[in-house]
Amino acid sequence: METLPIAPIGRILSNAGAPRATKNAKIELSKELTELGNEIAAEAVKIAKHSGRKTVKASDIELVVKLKF
Amino acid sequence: METLPIAPIGRILSNAGAPRATKNAKIELSKELTELGNEIAAEAVKIAKHSGRKTVKASDIELVVKLKF
Repeated sequence: METLPIAPIGRILSNAGAPRATKNAKIELSKELTELGNEIAAEAVKIAKHSGRKTVKASDIELVVKLKF
Repeated sequence: METLPIAPIGRILSNAGAPRATKNAKIELSKELTELGNEIAAEAVKIAKHSGRKTVKASDIELVVKLKF
């Protein structure tokens, strides 16, 4: 299973104003974003198929996010 | 502003069953996950402060995701 790299996740936490974050906090955020990514990607694949395409486009991703979040 | 790297995002799309994805689809998914990450991180910082801590812990991230998604 894919997981997103920790370094940019740590910078997201710093940018959000976290003076400090444990390594486990970074790992947890990486895990949660990966799961959200899996969910969005799976729905985008369904939308592309529904539209008769094999290629997932940016607008498929945008539509999923608009519908789900 | 931080953005998540494209390569693991492409693998998330492949793992989700996308036969193909445009580069813009990968960039869009990276952008959306970064925004969700910013949102989760900002709320986790608030929860840590509320608990009298400067350090964001994994349980802060878990609580945000439980409350919001």
